[in-house]
Amino acid sequence: MDRRGFLKGAGTGLVAAGAINAPAVIAQPTRFQLNMPTSWPAALDNLYGTAEYFAERIAVMTDGDVQVRTSPGGAEVGPLEVYDAVSSGAFECCHTAPYYFIGKNPAHGFFTAIPFGMTLDEQNAWMYAGGGQELWNELNARDNMIAFPGGNTSAQCGGWFNTEINSPADLEGLRMRFPGQGGRVMAKAGVSIQQLPGGEVFTAMERGALDAAEWVGPYDDQILGMQNVAQYYYLPSWAEPSAMLGFYFNLDVWNEFPADIKAQIQACCAEANTWMAARYLSLNPVALDELQAQGVEIRYFPDSVLTAFEEGAQAVHEEDMSNADYARIHGEWSAFLARVRGWNGQNSHRYQSFIYRNQG
Amino acid sequence: MDRRGFLKGAGTGLVAAGAINAPAVIAQPTRFQLNMPTSWPAALDNLYGTAEYFAERIAVMTDGDVQVRTSPGGAEVGPLEVYDAVSSGAFECCHTAPYYFIGKNPAHGFFTAIPFGMTLDEQNAWMYAGGGQELWNELNARDNMIAFPGGNTSAQCGGWFNTEINSPADLEGLRMRFPGQGGRVMAKAGVSIQQLPGGEVFTAMERGALDAAEWVGPYDDQILGMQNVAQYYYLPSWAEPSAMLGFYFNLDVWNEFPADIKAQIQACCAEANTWMAARYLSLNPVALDELQAQGVEIRYFPDSVLTAFEEGAQAVHEEDMSNADYARIHGEWSAFLARVRGWNGQNSHRYQSFIYRNQG
Repeated sequence: MDRRGFLKGAGTGLVAAGAINAPAVIAQPTRFQLNMPTSWPAALDNLYGTAEYFAERIAVMTDGDVQVRTSPGGAEVGPLEVYDAVSSGAFECCHTAPYYFIGKNPAHGFFTAIPFGMTLDEQNAWMYAGGGQELWNELNARDNMIAFPGGNTSAQCGGWFNTEINSPADLEGLRMRFPGQGGRVMAKAGVSIQQLPGGEVFTAMERGALDAAEWVGPYDDQILGMQNVAQYYYLPSWAEPSAMLGFYFNLDVWNEFPADIKAQIQACCAEANTWMAARYLSLNPVALDELQAQGVEIRYFPDSVLTAFEEGAQAVHEEDMSNADYARIHGEWSAFLARVRGWNGQNSHRYQSFIYRNQG
Repeated sequence: MDRRGFLKGAGTGLVAAGAINAPAVIAQPTRFQLNMPTSWPAALDNLYGTAEYFAERIAVMTDGDVQVRTSPGGAEVGPLEVYDAVSSGAFECCHTAPYYFIGKNPAHGFFTAIPFGMTLDEQNAWMYAGGGQELWNELNARDNMIAFPGGNTSAQCGGWFNTEINSPADLEGLRMRFPGQGGRVMAKAGVSIQQLPGGEVFTAMERGALDAAEWVGPYDDQILGMQNVAQYYYLPSWAEPSAMLGFYFNLDVWNEFPADIKAQIQACCAEANTWMAARYLSLNPVALDELQAQGVEIRYFPDSVLTAFEEGAQAVHEEDMSNADYARIHGEWSAFLARVRGWNGQNSHRYQSFIYRNQG
């Protein structure tokens, strides 16, 4: 990377181009100019919008000292190539989902979602106060990066199908889009898994190249138009009970920041992390109602299917345990989760069970 | 308030005194020096610690431009008098729980906890993306303040008792510490409610002035020593399924900040809000195990008692509806909560019910 191109001694004009987000012109010199490719289509205003939110907030917080130029997946680099692009130094930072990169190392899964893993509260507790950030730092440092929680979808849905899933046998032979370890669990149940960025899911379903697809939840799935290519929406997501994203920074870039800029970026990441989860929880209920009004039928995975997924998840976990990073992080992650579940199970879950006691 | 005393043209020495937190000396001039009394004893390192966390982080973020001097409840102003102290301008800001001030206006309850109300995720969704912040701004502006979410205890416990609560009749005549609308619900069940700051709860229990007490959860309650004065710990909290705190700022002070400082303070509040909830979720499970090892017996409120509380909560709600602020905010709050529950009930709650399906 050209270090002189990153550290700016004087203001540099930015030109808006298409869907690329250009911050408002601020009169004073820009000290740090960062290019942030993302893995998201610009139409997904909660995913891509979180990168834009970060860019807007950090510009105000730093009084223009940090200018972030976001770009949608594919505009400057492929949506699933942003990790390598920041690692190599071709870009200063990116916004993506860590579990897109489990092919490099299955341990990345802990920093988005693990099947039958953490809820939003639990993931945040682990990252901010349970040692998760420190483990992530070690993993990312090997690729010359540092990353911070950068949004969470909160609980996702189980996916879109055109046939009912009444038993594990109904899964066999389906061609499905499903990322992360969850997709590998699906493969163990006989599903043929294809990895596609979000922007390509609808087209693949429409063309018949896919029979089923998991994307995010009601709000995003409605934007992609999934209600037009699939009949059944299955709840809940067992694979992504929450899904954390990350703001990644090249370590050479990060290390150039003075302490105040580092602290501002971290706080801005935390703010964006909260903002995205809050947006999803506000928007998903409305979108789910709208999807049903459009004819989508809600279905719930029966316990026999969830139990089959749970067995598959255990098998995937055992495969990944041969990776030393996965094994080490899993030890910490699972101990933390077991403790928190011991508490949540007899406290917050009991409260919610009372609240939802009359629900079928 | 002496405006000249708040806006500092040059660095001002701070002298550490007792438990009062004094930031590290930073060489450059301090532009804004803020005194932040709190409602917490210094020993409660998650409650008081969140004010300290804010002070430390904002000093780094602003490179020393903002210096916050925290003080425990009672050191400079009574723990329940901080609201008036900031409203009047005697102090620039404070850290407290909004529902301590439902005596002034019952609408403050929505910004900490309402019986049978929002979980942590739901409260954050409402505040950050559901219109809650805007409603809070209107309420606080009348007392010349603005406040931001400043930490959340997440789900609390139901309280400490020395007798088993097997039916609503067992509540009658108990003298109990219980803040907020929840205390009024308890009163409808025949409990004699006393309002005490956290620092005085243990002593009152020990002296026999109280029969029962609700404070926070395992971590904080253990620090107060509740396990030494009560036998039964009742779960879950129906009154505080989450409990939000607030960083309050006098509006004259707030309006003096330039846009970058305002944005930094808001981001720092959001970071502190996440940090506190994460800490509680990490620490409560360990503390609950320790309390049980010390002989505390866990009990769960039977459904008959929860149903009685729910009826009491409805009665308290109907009383408060005569207040126009409460009625207006309740309309927005309850519509938001109903929508989110329609979604959470059939998605995240189903996931958790599967996870906890083998629990008694």
